[in-house]
Amino acid sequence: MFGALALVLVGARLGAALCRRLGLPEVLGELLAGIVIGNLGLIGLHAADALRSSPGLDLLGQIGVLFLLFMVGLELDLSQMMRVGSSSLLVAVVGVIVPMALGFLVSRAFHPAAPAVLHAFVGATLCATSVGISARVLAELGRTDSATGRVVLGAAVIDDLLGLIVLAVIAGLISGANHGSGPNLAAIGLMVVRAVAFLAGAIALGRWGSRHLFRLAGRIEAEGLLLALALALLFALSWLAGAAGLAPIVGAFAAGLVLEDGHYQQLRDRDPRHRSLHQLFEPLATFLVPVFFVLMGMRVDLSAFLAPGVPAFTLALTVAAVIGKQACGLGVIAPGVDRIAVGIGMIPRGEVGLIFAGIGAGLTLAGRRVIDGPGYAAVVAMVALTTLIAPPLFAWRLRRSAEGRGAPARGR
Amino acid sequence: MFGALALVLVGARLGAALCRRLGLPEVLGELLAGIVIGNLGLIGLHAADALRSSPGLDLLGQIGVLFLLFMVGLELDLSQMMRVGSSSLLVAVVGVIVPMALGFLVSRAFHPAAPAVLHAFVGATLCATSVGISARVLAELGRTDSATGRVVLGAAVIDDLLGLIVLAVIAGLISGANHGSGPNLAAIGLMVVRAVAFLAGAIALGRWGSRHLFRLAGRIEAEGLLLALALALLFALSWLAGAAGLAPIVGAFAAGLVLEDGHYQQLRDRDPRHRSLHQLFEPLATFLVPVFFVLMGMRVDLSAFLAPGVPAFTLALTVAAVIGKQACGLGVIAPGVDRIAVGIGMIPRGEVGLIFAGIGAGLTLAGRRVIDGPGYAAVVAMVALTTLIAPPLFAWRLRRSAEGRGAPARGR
Repeated sequence: MFGALALVLVGARLGAALCRRLGLPEVLGELLAGIVIGNLGLIGLHAADALRSSPGLDLLGQIGVLFLLFMVGLELDLSQMMRVGSSSLLVAVVGVIVPMALGFLVSRAFHPAAPAVLHAFVGATLCATSVGISARVLAELGRTDSATGRVVLGAAVIDDLLGLIVLAVIAGLISGANHGSGPNLAAIGLMVVRAVAFLAGAIALGRWGSRHLFRLAGRIEAEGLLLALALALLFALSWLAGAAGLAPIVGAFAAGLVLEDGHYQQLRDRDPRHRSLHQLFEPLATFLVPVFFVLMGMRVDLSAFLAPGVPAFTLALTVAAVIGKQACGLGVIAPGVDRIAVGIGMIPRGEVGLIFAGIGAGLTLAGRRVIDGPGYAAVVAMVALTTLIAPPLFAWRLRRSAEGRGAPARGR
Repeated sequence: MFGALALVLVGARLGAALCRRLGLPEVLGELLAGIVIGNLGLIGLHAADALRSSPGLDLLGQIGVLFLLFMVGLELDLSQMMRVGSSSLLVAVVGVIVPMALGFLVSRAFHPAAPAVLHAFVGATLCATSVGISARVLAELGRTDSATGRVVLGAAVIDDLLGLIVLAVIAGLISGANHGSGPNLAAIGLMVVRAVAFLAGAIALGRWGSRHLFRLAGRIEAEGLLLALALALLFALSWLAGAAGLAPIVGAFAAGLVLEDGHYQQLRDRDPRHRSLHQLFEPLATFLVPVFFVLMGMRVDLSAFLAPGVPAFTLALTVAAVIGKQACGLGVIAPGVDRIAVGIGMIPRGEVGLIFAGIGAGLTLAGRRVIDGPGYAAVVAMVALTTLIAPPLFAWRLRRSAEGRGAPARGR
């Protein structure tokens, strides 16, 4: 177990360093490291084969992904998000519906015999833009605070949220189908309501509760209290989300949204180095998040690409993922925004798509895995390809539109 | 799983806060929280019963104890330890041999039918002084750098090391006994050599390797590289220790000893907040170390104390633990040291005793657990009792000897 952990951590670092040197996102390197480790069997080294299904690594990766979603939530300011305006919301909604529909059609074209929920699941993996990758490109070009930048970032965040709701609905449909009840509009509506209600409830209760909890805790003297309370809230909400039939990551995300600087200022002041929650969670994420991505890579069976139809399916999915997000430009209503840049900025899929694929690989429908080996390999390859294509294209378009206008476009 | 984690973290915090307020060490509070959670079955609440043997919690606790030993190793400066001198070494050796012999005799008196290695294991849990507790008392009284303080701290550290070697030997004897070979001096000698050789080899190779590795890594640009490399070294050495037939904690301790500030200065300079390894590991320890201690507490079966002989055995063990360390004063050869204070300062047992008890509960001899339920409960109670007794006694004696001499005694 400990040897496996050392291998995973070293592999993740090597892959990340390689990709960073090539100007690619580090997460891609961690995935690639996992693919290499998981497929050593192809060259006759079977020592690492058992790691793919190690329950210990799986638990650590699951906790890693909770930390990741928690930190995404932590970085978002709810009130600022509200102000990003209707353009982001429209862009996000278009960017969820169109790729999902295209993904559904591609999946049905390639697997006509499979049930509709499977197609919906494949479509769902195309929903969520990876906010990190476009954010990094925008930051490198100094365009984070441009109108285009704000629309893209806002939309990427909202489509994560929408994606979580879509996931809750589809997972609910699958569990319903396993119990013999067919999909109907009332059931879908109920699940949307439940997912939205959980998020809204967790946020409302969590905000109220955390403010009071942290104030109370401010009276107790103890080192590490801030981190311990945040961890407890994170795990409690993840558990509640699971108990409510949602993915635990929804709870982790809500926990991150709930915690705001103001609530724990008193605890932070007492810390000898005045560390913020983000700073406290960073080492935890450095430890466990790569475990998740390496494991995701390890579960890609390269030999699955040898099966007839799988390379074509992968390519078709990737095209659907790219084309689907180009419709996003239509959702822009704010002035001074480069619609083409918005479409390109929404291309990269990342963490959330992989998380969905992982959840799909863990669900069964009529005794069969919802996302099987070849399907899983295709989704992971789609994520890797969009992540490879997007940064250079996005940078090129942003530079071009800046030249065309002279200065960065005016904000709203 | 996530609900259990939230429960464990909240329980640990509440227990720690309570003990802190009462002036007791926090680790005691975490143990007590575990005892409460693990024994809710006594009042009819059986929801938490399954947590005691949850493999997920067990893994997290195991990683937590690796982090703990790593940080102990990190705080030690090998060259400074060498300079602490022969008094600490003698005090440590006496403080390992005498309590172990007394523990052996107590265990044999209460369980005459049990094999000798079991008595040796019980004796081994009495070896290691908890450096943290006496260090905190010394710091509160401003006596850390007195002659008495340095002898106690040096000896507490050395007896951790000796304890790890004793553990390696006894675990080897048990595995030998399971394979039918009886204990003989040659086998014991071999195991001592192997344990010492592993520590020395890991330290020598690790120092050389980590210096070069970190220099090489200094050329790669990547965030979080320092922490990732340290984690990889920690897990790799833990795994190697396990592969060499030693406890993984020996490897974690060696990894901590190996890493010194100078080696990774370049990486630390690149960190945006210039964090040291200690600062980077602190959040990891805050997360996982309490999981270990709560789990240790959860495994104490309070109803075991109802069995005839168990309270008496606990009391006898505790007396052996206290008396045994009083012999330590005889090892003092440096001038200006209060021999009685040294004996009292060595009383608290802590982490290492609990770790040994946990390992003993996991080993089997002729199909029977080496440390069974009542034995485990007695050892944990002994640790808790010594931790309760020692701080007030030590503070009283230190104040008295300071009054008697006027000023703190001169250093060597």
